[in-house]
Amino acid sequence: MKRIAVLTSGGDAPGMNAAIRAVVRQAISEGMEVFGIYDGYAGMVAGEIHPLDAASVGDIISRGGTFLHSARYPEFAQLEGQLKGIEQLKKHGIEGVVVIGGDGSYHGAMRLTEHGFPAIGLPGTIDNDIVGTDFTIGFDTAVTTAMDAIDKIRDTSSSHRRTFVIEVMGRNAGDIALWAGIATGADEIIIPEAGFKMEDIVASIKAGYECGKKHNIIVLAEGVMSAAEFGQKLKEAGDISDLRVTELGHIQRGGSPTPRDRVLASRMGAHAVKLLKEGIGGVAVGIRNEKMVENPILGTAEEGALFSLTAEGKIVVNNPHEADIELSSLNKSLS
Amino acid sequence: MKRIAVLTSGGDAPGMNAAIRAVVRQAISEGMEVFGIYDGYAGMVAGEIHPLDAASVGDIISRGGTFLHSARYPEFAQLEGQLKGIEQLKKHGIEGVVVIGGDGSYHGAMRLTEHGFPAIGLPGTIDNDIVGTDFTIGFDTAVTTAMDAIDKIRDTSSSHRRTFVIEVMGRNAGDIALWAGIATGADEIIIPEAGFKMEDIVASIKAGYECGKKHNIIVLAEGVMSAAEFGQKLKEAGDISDLRVTELGHIQRGGSPTPRDRVLASRMGAHAVKLLKEGIGGVAVGIRNEKMVENPILGTAEEGALFSLTAEGKIVVNNPHEADIELSSLNKSLS
Amino acid sequence: MKRIAVLTSGGDAPGMNAAIRAVVRQAISEGMEVFGIYDGYAGMVAGEIHPLDAASVGDIISRGGTFLHSARYPEFAQLEGQLKGIEQLKKHGIEGVVVIGGDGSYHGAMRLTEHGFPAIGLPGTIDNDIVGTDFTIGFDTAVTTAMDAIDKIRDTSSSHRRTFVIEVMGRNAGDIALWAGIATGADEIIIPEAGFKMEDIVASIKAGYECGKKHNIIVLAEGVMSAAEFGQKLKEAGDISDLRVTELGHIQRGGSPTPRDRVLASRMGAHAVKLLKEGIGGVAVGIRNEKMVENPILGTAEEGALFSLTAEGKIVVNNPHEADIELSSLNKSLS
Amino acid sequence: MKRIAVLTSGGDAPGMNAAIRAVVRQAISEGMEVFGIYDGYAGMVAGEIHPLDAASVGDIISRGGTFLHSARYPEFAQLEGQLKGIEQLKKHGIEGVVVIGGDGSYHGAMRLTEHGFPAIGLPGTIDNDIVGTDFTIGFDTAVTTAMDAIDKIRDTSSSHRRTFVIEVMGRNAGDIALWAGIATGADEIIIPEAGFKMEDIVASIKAGYECGKKHNIIVLAEGVMSAAEFGQKLKEAGDISDLRVTELGHIQRGGSPTPRDRVLASRMGAHAVKLLKEGIGGVAVGIRNEKMVENPILGTAEEGALFSLTAEGKIVVNNPHEADIELSSLNKSLS
Repeated sequence: MKRIAVLTSGGDAPGMNAAIRAVVRQAISEGMEVFGIYDGYAGMVAGEIHPLDAASVGDIISRGGTFLHSARYPEFAQLEGQLKGIEQLKKHGIEGVVVIGGDGSYHGAMRLTEHGFPAIGLPGTIDNDIVGTDFTIGFDTAVTTAMDAIDKIRDTSSSHRRTFVIEVMGRNAGDIALWAGIATGADEIIIPEAGFKMEDIVASIKAGYECGKKHNIIVLAEGVMSAAEFGQKLKEAGDISDLRVTELGHIQRGGSPTPRDRVLASRMGAHAVKLLKEGIGGVAVGIRNEKMVENPILGTAEEGALFSLTAEGKIVVNNPHEADIELSSLNKSLS
Repeated sequence: MKRIAVLTSGGDAPGMNAAIRAVVRQAISEGMEVFGIYDGYAGMVAGEIHPLDAASVGDIISRGGTFLHSARYPEFAQLEGQLKGIEQLKKHGIEGVVVIGGDGSYHGAMRLTEHGFPAIGLPGTIDNDIVGTDFTIGFDTAVTTAMDAIDKIRDTSSSHRRTFVIEVMGRNAGDIALWAGIATGADEIIIPEAGFKMEDIVASIKAGYECGKKHNIIVLAEGVMSAAEFGQKLKEAGDISDLRVTELGHIQRGGSPTPRDRVLASRMGAHAVKLLKEGIGGVAVGIRNEKMVENPILGTAEEGALFSLTAEGKIVVNNPHEADIELSSLNKSLS
Repeated sequence: MKRIAVLTSGGDAPGMNAAIRAVVRQAISEGMEVFGIYDGYAGMVAGEIHPLDAASVGDIISRGGTFLHSARYPEFAQLEGQLKGIEQLKKHGIEGVVVIGGDGSYHGAMRLTEHGFPAIGLPGTIDNDIVGTDFTIGFDTAVTTAMDAIDKIRDTSSSHRRTFVIEVMGRNAGDIALWAGIATGADEIIIPEAGFKMEDIVASIKAGYECGKKHNIIVLAEGVMSAAEFGQKLKEAGDISDLRVTELGHIQRGGSPTPRDRVLASRMGAHAVKLLKEGIGGVAVGIRNEKMVENPILGTAEEGALFSLTAEGKIVVNNPHEADIELSSLNKSLS
Repeated sequence: MKRIAVLTSGGDAPGMNAAIRAVVRQAISEGMEVFGIYDGYAGMVAGEIHPLDAASVGDIISRGGTFLHSARYPEFAQLEGQLKGIEQLKKHGIEGVVVIGGDGSYHGAMRLTEHGFPAIGLPGTIDNDIVGTDFTIGFDTAVTTAMDAIDKIRDTSSSHRRTFVIEVMGRNAGDIALWAGIATGADEIIIPEAGFKMEDIVASIKAGYECGKKHNIIVLAEGVMSAAEFGQKLKEAGDISDLRVTELGHIQRGGSPTPRDRVLASRMGAHAVKLLKEGIGGVAVGIRNEKMVENPILGTAEEGALFSLTAEGKIVVNNPHEADIELSSLNKSLS
């Protein structure tokens, strides 16, 4: 393989630039040429494809976001979109592609591979909700941003003896909430993966204040409900404390990546290029037990594929990601 | 004066701890004893008054919040509350008080002074909306927190070509919005001190995208309206961009203070003690042209008093704080 | 076991407070009493032992350093020191101990266990150089601090086309250098675990500037030599670039811990208490493949012990820690 | 004036990019064209002059360093160098220049003006040592970086009861030391502007430890002597504490600028363009009492000029910058 391309897809995540840099530099060191596809699959179809050299990714390892821009483009799920994209790849002589994004973007990588263009998926999302990897690119940074914010809110809640409900991101996964909650000594962490009773929380807040606690911090994963809704239900369940609800919001998607995300992205980007060099496609890269691994994107569970197709053609996730429930019970002892 | 006390009142602000430390250390170096009053005026009335030594304020200069805790206590506006508080001061042999808080807390300082207990007000609030000073304790840190958050949001908006409406604090003042907006290169800064037309903003967003802008950041002061309301009106006025609204919220009240806030708080705390030592009370400390100044809290405009009483006994602000409109026009050239 | 104690020993590391908090809170949730031993083994011998309750570790999870203070105390390697310490433990009714520190402090934990006081070692050091664990408490924070500093130096080196030699900590291990180097896109990472030729580096700097590089960043592990010495040798080997050498120094030991260090410390502290509850001692806790593990401190390699004694009574490390050489070669492709 | 240029000169400072951006954007909003001169006066002579548009300074307000690069170029003090530079300016049709740098670079601005090319100086240096302004661009960021570093060192010194001598930058000025020292509660701040006796410091360290202090932080301005030398003299004067010396070094020149530096740079850059538009040159912009001011660079003291020439042609500084000695005495009360 002599010429490859790289794109970012879906919601952006800190560390995507580090991954792009690794793809570009590793490819060059392997004697390949590299192109950047701007604006994700949409840009592939539109032909937004430009050569990248080593200097073009200088000084980007520390930057949040993705300089290739990212976009959601559901049309790429259709054959028509795929064929248009492939036409563009051919035009530029591109033989393989690295796709950095959420698992939605893995589907496109699979299709490209089926059409004869080996493509590799890299897990780039703050939510840590992708199968086939212990950690995603961007997760550690998002947790750090959430932790810093909650540390700040704690300063002020200490002064006012207030209850704070703080909503963090994570789509359907509780990972950000769990890590940020434990890291900030949250009194409660509410995640989709574990049930909770509003009455218990009300009782626990009350008991805390009775035995001298100065504040109560509840970290809520967005996958459960919104902070506003949670606050409302807390009141309805009898809470009478001075309640404030806050949604951390989009700051969680940005920021200079942490060392962990930069190193993870660098390793994954380089690994993807090595796989392409061997002609391998249709797999997603992950980190397992601190080592680089790859899994077929589509196939049978026995093959270790991340997704399978049912007889009716529906996509099934073989080993759905689950947040670490042990962390949840750890917090119950420590809070 | 041999024995003084210090309290924090109203909403808390980064740098309050630095100010408390300065009061304590300066008093000790002047040969005085110092007491800390916990929970503001409420704690004064309840007798939550404890001695502080030099070591008790060690290592707090870097901490957000206030270790004396703060509270709003409207009852202190009434004579009854004041007399109860004074009783407690007498019990502890306290002869003067430093009050750190918003201008609401200056009123109490004035009353204490009238009752024979000289009290000094220090401007402690993130909003920078207090008369008699160029800057308040906490403002620089709040601006820094807002700037860091908007920098992060810009990372992600760069990737998605979105319009972001970001609401920052400031009560009725636009200072945080102006400083954070200029510091982040905001496209628009909407403040209570300057008018705006929704149609102009819609046109400007459209024009920006047409000539190649990748994102549009609107920083909105809470004193204008909420981000949600602003977003709604923007849509109604015809904006069709991919709009996101976000409220930075309580993170702006916390965090380790910046050097500017720590130095300002240290200077003001030390200055207040020197004034008390000379038996001066009923004044508020400020910084003007980088120098410590003090103004009578209540009196005539000619005396330089911050507030005057009308014949009907209503409080009038003599030179109401206004955010720097020049900064607003500066941004129009630079964005 | 009804009463346990916790101490920190050796050089301090960010996250030690989080580990202490976890020991205290987990012990209380298991129905035990907990004591804090101040100033490490020296304080044990001196009887600096005080009860800790849940509130006494409130709000410390975010603080660098260790509020129990740490100290090096070589006398505890001698029987006499150990017996004096045990006398104090008995006086306070303490039945088990958690020791947080470098592997030097594991020896004491082993001796206490042999004397009938089960003790557990937790790896607390920024250097990541402890056997039996993938990561130590404090490593991620130290890497983050080093990365932030190098990012700042890169700003200025970009402006001046300079070569910077930046010395980071790590004792005899290259881990901090490797992680911080990859995270900052260093041009060279010099570690004790991999050889290097000064001539190659000189040639590489020269080649870089010739093909347009604006700066050259060399991250040097302290275990190799000092930055000053390295700079000297670089000059002697013919480097003629505008050279600056800098030693990051003690900032690497401080700072608020990262989420990763806080979560790791919380897990390890809680795990240690569970082991003590079962009467287990003489083991060190580690994290392997993201799971808590424990290994005998002393024993045979077959038993999985971290250290063995030779027939002559000398200590042998069974599986000495080694920095990940793959990261080193990764950097060669990416820089 | 229809076409102007901007350059950065001397040591770089955070906020220079924000100042460049302001020059570019303000010029465009005034209907002018703008060129960037790369590598300071050296680049002017070499013809490294390229047009800048509004987009070319997008997203740089948050970046440390200067994207135009900076360089020291003593040759520009000679007529020959100046004439070569002017030839290049003429070639590009440039009529006025904004120079951002230390006061060394003001000389060149003066000469350009004398040759018929109005040039304005902006104070860009972390040292705050420039006449004609209360604050320089970069100072607040450097103080913040120093404060963050000392806060971290304090974490670890708390654990070890050590004395730390921490050298900060500032050339011959003590400003960074004073601000960073007060902001971190330093026990001693040693600056060139105030004398000190080594014996007093030794006695004070001893007294501190005797009355229970846990650590001792000495912040030393580089203008006094190096940390290593200071530590040596401290030992010689009888200090027996566990002494560590550290030099913060080049991290102080980098980093994303603080809001104060970004706003200051934005105001100064815009103000410089307005002056050029009126045909004014040969002046330096400053901030006095929070307002923009300008002073003649060369002239008589009566004219408010920053520098005068003696009969022998030597340069005299009219009102040499001095660090605020009141801050120094403030610290003596608070430490």
